[in-house]
Amino acid sequence: MTPFKLTDELLEDIRQLIADEKNGELQSMMQEFHYADIAEIADELNVEEATYLIKLLNSEKTSDILAEMHEDIREAVLNNLTAKEIASELEELDTDDAADIINELPKEIVQEVISEIEDREHAKHIVDLLRYDEDTAGGLMAKELVKVNENWNVLTCVKEMRAQAENVTRVHSIYVVDDEGRLKGRLSLKDLLTTSTKTHIKDIYISKVDYVNVNEKGEEVAKIMSKYDLEAIPVVDEIGRLVGRITIDDIVDVIREEADKDYQMAAGISREVEADDSILELTRARLPWLLIGMFGGIGAASIIDSFQPIMIGFPILLIFVPLIQATAGNVGVQSSAIMVQGLANDTVKGEILKRLLKEFSIGLINGGAIASIVLLISHFIFGTPYMVSITIAIAVILVIIIAALIGTFIPVFLDKRGIDPAIATGPFITTSNDIFGILIYFLTAKLILGI
Amino acid sequence: MTPFKLTDELLEDIRQLIADEKNGELQSMMQEFHYADIAEIADELNVEEATYLIKLLNSEKTSDILAEMHEDIREAVLNNLTAKEIASELEELDTDDAADIINELPKEIVQEVISEIEDREHAKHIVDLLRYDEDTAGGLMAKELVKVNENWNVLTCVKEMRAQAENVTRVHSIYVVDDEGRLKGRLSLKDLLTTSTKTHIKDIYISKVDYVNVNEKGEEVAKIMSKYDLEAIPVVDEIGRLVGRITIDDIVDVIREEADKDYQMAAGISREVEADDSILELTRARLPWLLIGMFGGIGAASIIDSFQPIMIGFPILLIFVPLIQATAGNVGVQSSAIMVQGLANDTVKGEILKRLLKEFSIGLINGGAIASIVLLISHFIFGTPYMVSITIAIAVILVIIIAALIGTFIPVFLDKRGIDPAIATGPFITTSNDIFGILIYFLTAKLILGI
Repeated sequence: MTPFKLTDELLEDIRQLIADEKNGELQSMMQEFHYADIAEIADELNVEEATYLIKLLNSEKTSDILAEMHEDIREAVLNNLTAKEIASELEELDTDDAADIINELPKEIVQEVISEIEDREHAKHIVDLLRYDEDTAGGLMAKELVKVNENWNVLTCVKEMRAQAENVTRVHSIYVVDDEGRLKGRLSLKDLLTTSTKTHIKDIYISKVDYVNVNEKGEEVAKIMSKYDLEAIPVVDEIGRLVGRITIDDIVDVIREEADKDYQMAAGISREVEADDSILELTRARLPWLLIGMFGGIGAASIIDSFQPIMIGFPILLIFVPLIQATAGNVGVQSSAIMVQGLANDTVKGEILKRLLKEFSIGLINGGAIASIVLLISHFIFGTPYMVSITIAIAVILVIIIAALIGTFIPVFLDKRGIDPAIATGPFITTSNDIFGILIYFLTAKLILGI
Repeated sequence: MTPFKLTDELLEDIRQLIADEKNGELQSMMQEFHYADIAEIADELNVEEATYLIKLLNSEKTSDILAEMHEDIREAVLNNLTAKEIASELEELDTDDAADIINELPKEIVQEVISEIEDREHAKHIVDLLRYDEDTAGGLMAKELVKVNENWNVLTCVKEMRAQAENVTRVHSIYVVDDEGRLKGRLSLKDLLTTSTKTHIKDIYISKVDYVNVNEKGEEVAKIMSKYDLEAIPVVDEIGRLVGRITIDDIVDVIREEADKDYQMAAGISREVEADDSILELTRARLPWLLIGMFGGIGAASIIDSFQPIMIGFPILLIFVPLIQATAGNVGVQSSAIMVQGLANDTVKGEILKRLLKEFSIGLINGGAIASIVLLISHFIFGTPYMVSITIAIAVILVIIIAALIGTFIPVFLDKRGIDPAIATGPFITTSNDIFGILIYFLTAKLILGI
């Protein structure tokens, strides 16, 4: 594939065509592009231009474009469409994408849009999906699936399947249900085609089928699907009735979003933002952790202030404060990141005590290495008196060990309490380790130098 | 699905059954488990136990178990198998998984293992795959696919497809090639079944098909497949010949690994490690960044040391060093994380100057807020003289703005130079911002307080 690349020239051309209302040229140009590429183009246009483009193309393609567009731009474009126009877009979409779009619409027009959807079955399915939280299996699933009754024979089954398959783009599996609609198993296409038409489905279906509950968390569904290499998974309600299916492409999005969220949390960004968001949004996402970090800094200032005699007696100790602080922060971030990742991937097993002991050993090795170098540099380069250099070195070892233990313990503790441990990396751990590190440093100095 | 949960009791039971050599019970127990679950069990056993379990089960299941197992444990278990036994496992695997396992085998037995594979076609395919870098499309692809010649008619095509499909677990697409094996397009199963058997394939195939080059980076393949919602993509060589296909489940693994790697890089972990790795491995992954952080700390110490007159004249300035350092670090990590993510998701467009201006504005707002609070606290709580408090507040604003600019600029700079910008977060940015932050702080003090 010559990959599509949205250049500034291409964008400029499209803008010009829109300005000149050259509809024919625009249409034939867009014909060549994949809907995902047109969505990328629309994201870069202003709202009027994007709306013009969307109105120009036909519903079958525009619905897919809308589904792929950036949420904010889509919202603005939909604002320029009538309820009837929105409904005709939703008509073309799979129920899951349609429900996602409805969830973004202003409350007052939702009712009208839904009532304008001509295919009432489709509308009913969309409404069904609206009641699930977007982070659950229910919020991820679509209604489009092929299901057959265990009491049918092969002939009825094939006939019914043909009708159902019309609404389903990709048939991943044929699900078998009982009279109450409860999921019983799945059917292999091969068995269906090689068995006599009078055979009952209940005699040929495979009862082993992976499924998830409608309230299962999206993250958990992603884990199950990627562990078992599934391309689709059926979703059942509380009493085991088949209510939808989730496909792997939606899960890919969940995995990406989850990873982005964890990454941002580790970087001290408290709300989901993108580089292109507004200054206000970016500020709101960043200020909270800066404030927490600031109070950490004020805390550190109070600690240093309370060791006045040391400051006066050994001012040289103060120039190594940044070293202590950086080390405490780095060690804390490292150990917490390893724990957070281990917890997310379910690879952390065994007792916490053993794990802390391991961190203690790693801290001892790293601490020993760093402390030796610091000892030499502070004594020979900065001319720090011998005892003071030893004090600094011992403090470095202690700080590294304790920072590692804190970095390991906090994520496990949060996880046990049901809190997402990902919050425990980045600024959280650096701030608390700043304070502990400096406290340990001055306490060590007080003990050894006896002030 | 009642999700599989590996409890300590279950593990103990299995260990006991292995110790007592109760093969029958073990076999019937494992019968009930999915191979991915058995792989999870094997990962927790010691090498002798895992080998015992693998040897007990039949090749069809064990090959899948081996493919899902943790690399280190698999390597150890394979060490206990003969070349012939390994070959019979590879026989059952898809070519991509088989090639991955061969890549881990000691060089001296690779030749022997390959020669023991009975299906010579399969062996040849595996050898083909060995020459690709594991991070490229070639390293991700498998040879199992269904392809038909454009010059065949529908009848020949259906016959040939049946034979090919036997070796392919899931048929995602039927690819069309010319006499030289070059990818021409794809075929819809529906068209194939509804057309007269004498029709030539060249008259019914769809020429629009997404594909990737064999040397394309895995990360890029992941982007393309998730952008276009593809479940499989064909891979072509330099002259356009169809050489393999990549399925979405392999891409899910690529996305997860990529996210894990970025997360670890941001946390200052320089080699891929897991919580369960050995103390030595974890130390080696962590020490490099701690050393760099240490040298940063030493640099900061030199800077403070070089402002001796200020230290003596205004010792109170020293207690706010941790605040300056923490703020510089946090701001740098935030801005770099947003840029790194934006670059990875291709959402960063437009000029760098505009983006720096935006960061400047955000820095001004955040800086203003933090500086005002610091001003009040330092003056009223710590009793810092008015001019010194103002000095600290101005330094805070400057530090926040400059840290934000550095955090934004470095990832863009690295990206332009072809270096993975993910390296620019975490310790890298905190270390450089520590130094810049402290330098700015004391320079500001020197300018305003005139020492």
